[in-house]
Amino acid sequence: MGKKYRTVQFGCGPIGCYIVKFSVGRSNIELVGAVDIAPDKAGKDLGKAAGLDKELGITISDHAEALLKSVKPDIVIHTTGSKFDVVYEQLASIVKSGVNVVSTCEELSFPYVKHSELAVRLDDMAKTHNVTVLATGINPGFLMDAWPLFMTGVCKEVKAIRATRIQDACSRRIPFQQKIGAGLTALEFQKRVDGGSFGHVGMPESISMIAGALGWEIEKISETIEPVITDKVVSSNYITVPAGRAAGIRQLACAYRGGEPVISLEFQAYLGAPESYDSITITGTPNIDVKVPGGIHGDIGTASIVLNAIPRVVEAPAGLHTMKDMPIVVCSSDILS
Amino acid sequence: MGKKYRTVQFGCGPIGCYIVKFSVGRSNIELVGAVDIAPDKAGKDLGKAAGLDKELGITISDHAEALLKSVKPDIVIHTTGSKFDVVYEQLASIVKSGVNVVSTCEELSFPYVKHSELAVRLDDMAKTHNVTVLATGINPGFLMDAWPLFMTGVCKEVKAIRATRIQDACSRRIPFQQKIGAGLTALEFQKRVDGGSFGHVGMPESISMIAGALGWEIEKISETIEPVITDKVVSSNYITVPAGRAAGIRQLACAYRGGEPVISLEFQAYLGAPESYDSITITGTPNIDVKVPGGIHGDIGTASIVLNAIPRVVEAPAGLHTMKDMPIVVCSSDILS
Repeated sequence: MGKKYRTVQFGCGPIGCYIVKFSVGRSNIELVGAVDIAPDKAGKDLGKAAGLDKELGITISDHAEALLKSVKPDIVIHTTGSKFDVVYEQLASIVKSGVNVVSTCEELSFPYVKHSELAVRLDDMAKTHNVTVLATGINPGFLMDAWPLFMTGVCKEVKAIRATRIQDACSRRIPFQQKIGAGLTALEFQKRVDGGSFGHVGMPESISMIAGALGWEIEKISETIEPVITDKVVSSNYITVPAGRAAGIRQLACAYRGGEPVISLEFQAYLGAPESYDSITITGTPNIDVKVPGGIHGDIGTASIVLNAIPRVVEAPAGLHTMKDMPIVVCSSDILS
Repeated sequence: MGKKYRTVQFGCGPIGCYIVKFSVGRSNIELVGAVDIAPDKAGKDLGKAAGLDKELGITISDHAEALLKSVKPDIVIHTTGSKFDVVYEQLASIVKSGVNVVSTCEELSFPYVKHSELAVRLDDMAKTHNVTVLATGINPGFLMDAWPLFMTGVCKEVKAIRATRIQDACSRRIPFQQKIGAGLTALEFQKRVDGGSFGHVGMPESISMIAGALGWEIEKISETIEPVITDKVVSSNYITVPAGRAAGIRQLACAYRGGEPVISLEFQAYLGAPESYDSITITGTPNIDVKVPGGIHGDIGTASIVLNAIPRVVEAPAGLHTMKDMPIVVCSSDILS
């Protein structure tokens, strides 16, 4: 008790850099190392790479195992990718080094549908090495799964859940604006969709987490991605989108049970959305509507919940966990290890 | 897996009866006994006592220990009182019988401030007998503690938390309308306040739960109870209140840290409140406002969360737990043991 959590930042992209900035200001976090295999990052000082105005005296390493062996952190903050199978070997090497992991890997947030075999393997490995693995973030990890689940706690029965996130993308960073297709023609947008690696990753995971927690058998999950075509010119600080082009994205996922749509997730992020908000609608006894006007900023929310989860991950029994079974994650900036 | 949870209802007052009604309709609950020491309840059929239109074949017993020994439930649902020291012996006898407990006792929801010694004793006893004890409810247990705590999970830092519950009491049962002082003169209201056992029980507990979870040292907790005096006649189905009298209650609690008010709880319940709602305001990074228009019905919410917590309580490690450290409680009507 009374010690800081010693962390290694694994992945120094935009979210990793957000987490580094937040970590530096936290009285309960001691950053002791960083990993990134990109040639333009490895070898650099982490402070500079993260856009801080000072060096941190931490050189970004491209060799995770050697670093973990030398600095012996309490936990690795893993922020390298969305696809579980792609980052599996990274996670396995951290676990084999005997270090806990909190990851932003979207597919890892509830991996038992798409990658069940890998999930079981990682869970076994974590138990063998007596460490805990958790993936979290604002979405998946909170807005469209843990939060609606939490609100069902006061319901006698739940028939259907709807979670909606509407964002005016003007306030988000440029990679985010690009990621949602702002400025593309409808045809270019569709090509990206057809290409397969476009859109928000995590809706099937959020649906499966909800269904898993409520004990619901899901027959079918549908998912659609379409452009929000603007009928007037819209601009952010970075991009101007002429009328007739995509201002952003509208993504829907829906799960069916007994032939009825029971879990509906909707994500819209586009330049010029008239109102940003996050909301949940529970149809049941009682019906519950919950809304956060303005919505919760994605990068701040993700960086925060990742850091806030650290005490829970360190305390949890060994294994691969998901947010549905974790003790509630609270702002832990005043919690020491 | 696949078995119903066998429950004993301990306490057959208004909330106990709500829980009995909900239990009867649940596919994952098997009511196997009931306890109430009141002479007008013991010996009666639980169905009749709970206001169901049928008998349940369960006779209300006035001897808890003998009943628990004979029916061996998975858990006791304990709903006899708000004061931990008053119900301590009941809880101890359940624990000594080797049975888990979920209780609505407000002071037990976070007993480490008012009754720290008793809490430690009950925790030790629960560990000795390998059972789990949890107190929960809509408030305390959710609206003014677990819910705001849950929402802080996406915050970089939290400076202050405000939770507000405003209720038009017209829709609540008559004992509730009486409990909030509807119809009293200002003088009668003040006498009740001075009498000490008036008003919502649980605000200091909610504050202490929040502070405990966030790692905050609280210097002082202030609490005030005052009447909401109506300036026009207001009526419910049960009571008509003339102008100049109390339509209900306004109760505030505030916790100070570093001289600043950091946790503010406000509960208003009165006949004719123009808008019912539950809300949370977090001042921090980011600021978060959350609101449930209409509010969550207190009796439905309490009866539901008590039943929903059962799988978590049965699974949890032995000891006395509080909602701040439980895995999220979700609607568990489809979860079998």
